[in-house]
Amino acid sequence: MIPTEPPAARVQGSFEPLRFDGAAGVLLALDQTLLPDRTLVLELRSAEAVAEAIERLAIRGAPMIGAAAAYGLAVELASDPSPARARSAAARLRSARPTAVNLAYAVDRVLAAALAAPGGELAEASLAEAEAVHADELSASAAIATAGADLLVGAEGLLGPEPRLMTHCNAGALAAPGGGTALAVLAELHRRGALGGVIATESRPLLQGGRLTVYELAQLGIPHQLIVDSAAAWMIASGAVDAVIVGCDRVAASGDVANKIGTYGLSLAAAAAGIPLIVAGPTSTIDLDCPSGEAIVIEERSADEVRHAAGRLLTLADTPCRNPAFDVTPAALVSALVTERGVARPVSRATIAAVCQGRRGN
Amino acid sequence: MIPTEPPAARVQGSFEPLRFDGAAGVLLALDQTLLPDRTLVLELRSAEAVAEAIERLAIRGAPMIGAAAAYGLAVELASDPSPARARSAAARLRSARPTAVNLAYAVDRVLAAALAAPGGELAEASLAEAEAVHADELSASAAIATAGADLLVGAEGLLGPEPRLMTHCNAGALAAPGGGTALAVLAELHRRGALGGVIATESRPLLQGGRLTVYELAQLGIPHQLIVDSAAAWMIASGAVDAVIVGCDRVAASGDVANKIGTYGLSLAAAAAGIPLIVAGPTSTIDLDCPSGEAIVIEERSADEVRHAAGRLLTLADTPCRNPAFDVTPAALVSALVTERGVARPVSRATIAAVCQGRRGN
Repeated sequence: MIPTEPPAARVQGSFEPLRFDGAAGVLLALDQTLLPDRTLVLELRSAEAVAEAIERLAIRGAPMIGAAAAYGLAVELASDPSPARARSAAARLRSARPTAVNLAYAVDRVLAAALAAPGGELAEASLAEAEAVHADELSASAAIATAGADLLVGAEGLLGPEPRLMTHCNAGALAAPGGGTALAVLAELHRRGALGGVIATESRPLLQGGRLTVYELAQLGIPHQLIVDSAAAWMIASGAVDAVIVGCDRVAASGDVANKIGTYGLSLAAAAAGIPLIVAGPTSTIDLDCPSGEAIVIEERSADEVRHAAGRLLTLADTPCRNPAFDVTPAALVSALVTERGVARPVSRATIAAVCQGRRGN
Repeated sequence: MIPTEPPAARVQGSFEPLRFDGAAGVLLALDQTLLPDRTLVLELRSAEAVAEAIERLAIRGAPMIGAAAAYGLAVELASDPSPARARSAAARLRSARPTAVNLAYAVDRVLAAALAAPGGELAEASLAEAEAVHADELSASAAIATAGADLLVGAEGLLGPEPRLMTHCNAGALAAPGGGTALAVLAELHRRGALGGVIATESRPLLQGGRLTVYELAQLGIPHQLIVDSAAAWMIASGAVDAVIVGCDRVAASGDVANKIGTYGLSLAAAAAGIPLIVAGPTSTIDLDCPSGEAIVIEERSADEVRHAAGRLLTLADTPCRNPAFDVTPAALVSALVTERGVARPVSRATIAAVCQGRRGN
């Protein structure tokens, strides 16, 4: 893993969070831990390097880590195209983070393609499948943007003209290939001239809202305001927004949604205020093998993330902490799940099954 | 305002957040913006100095700013004991922060005593009244500790043995003379051997939980864990605590409670989980002239507080922010209000009036 400063031209304006350089056989990924201060592109040449980048959140966002892990398996097999290496690298990549199902989904897709490759061409087959995973996520993002915007402000849209929306954490181009998920919907509303503004939560502990979402909104020219996480419920109650829209890290068959810690609290506030909570994500985030939210493993991350912000100690150095990275919002509190295969609304076992009907792997 | 390093003996163990030095005629206040890194005592010699310390949260917590402002008026009148100076200094002190009613309550008490002083002895009368305000808050804290502990774990207590409690922001010895309000209850439970542990929210933007509450809990030897604010709702939902207990900055006649931003969100989570939300505060925090939460002015503070933590920029330097310092929790979501004059439960116009019956000034 050799960090290199990217050419300025690649960074300004049209940053590429994830790109596979076929000529060099290297996966290039923007180090999201340094944004917005620095734009640094990581050169990842092994499954281990990709797994480590995912673990430390240099690459993050459920669909993005799926695509990155797919390439991670492919770059590994470029050097040793053996079934044994394929299986061990896949296991390492899958173990990087437990909550987002996209990671296992993408790795399993690439592994299956590699093991099924005729004539031992595991490297070629895995790369082709990784590129297919990436392409699927790119088109999913575009479809989610359209479906979400139609749901909110279309002819029979849920909201009035120029709605103001709140989003949590980062569900943009840094979190999913293409324009992201929730943020892709906001960008599409903005393109239609139909967005009244965005309130972004800072999303402690790692500040993906304050660092990443604000950065993307500024690049998109979308009017926005940043708040601390604990102001969200009150801003919702006092009528500052017309809906909340977030991404997701895993959706159970029941429609229960695991997403960035704090989403559950937003769902309670939205319900109390009578405004919709919209979840956006590709169907690769839906885990039909997971019956309900109770079965979702919630990753607990290091106490140091809570004790620090931007490298600065915020409390006593030895303070014990809890640091769940995700929470689960029950399906009943989710107004709609926007996927690339349509909108599940209301969110129920039946509508979740319907949007998954015919998706790859079903 | 000449900051001086306090003698180590005064700081270790039994720090004094607020003390009037009668011999020197100076108000000594611990600068809470520097905790837990540094313990620095401010020497405040004028109403302006006290008002500025309150504005920048060097002195904070509704009862604490009331007591400080009371002394602020007294030190001002020591140098110029005129009715005109009394009125202008009182106005300056009242304007320091808009939400906590204790500030206006304490200033008005001292002003009235000064203006009523026989023989033009405004200085003596105002100091005596400031000391009475301080003494009232000290005994209120002790009474709240007992009443709150009895409510939670007494013979007919709301909770089972060794309950685990969550608290938000800082409602301890730094927020109110004596042991504080909500934290005084926790300390009393701990003294009784009846506390299972505390979860403290960090309370962005100024981290009064991570900096101050954790500091006090560590000094008290109370087992605790720190969480980011957005983890609170999920910790409540997943059964990590048996109740939530917070202080308050203003309570309306209806029982609606203004408190640190984020309290409203905790109230929704507590209600959804079926656990009590307890509010603790002296009756000096109850504003019977304020009919309901809608009439409470919510202070909006600087965007820089949101953009920074511990002096470090967390987002783009020009990011627009919203920064409401408080929110309002409706009375219906408050299980009980613990005061020095008894417990209002359920919280209603009638029970609020009852605990105020016979209080000073009614």
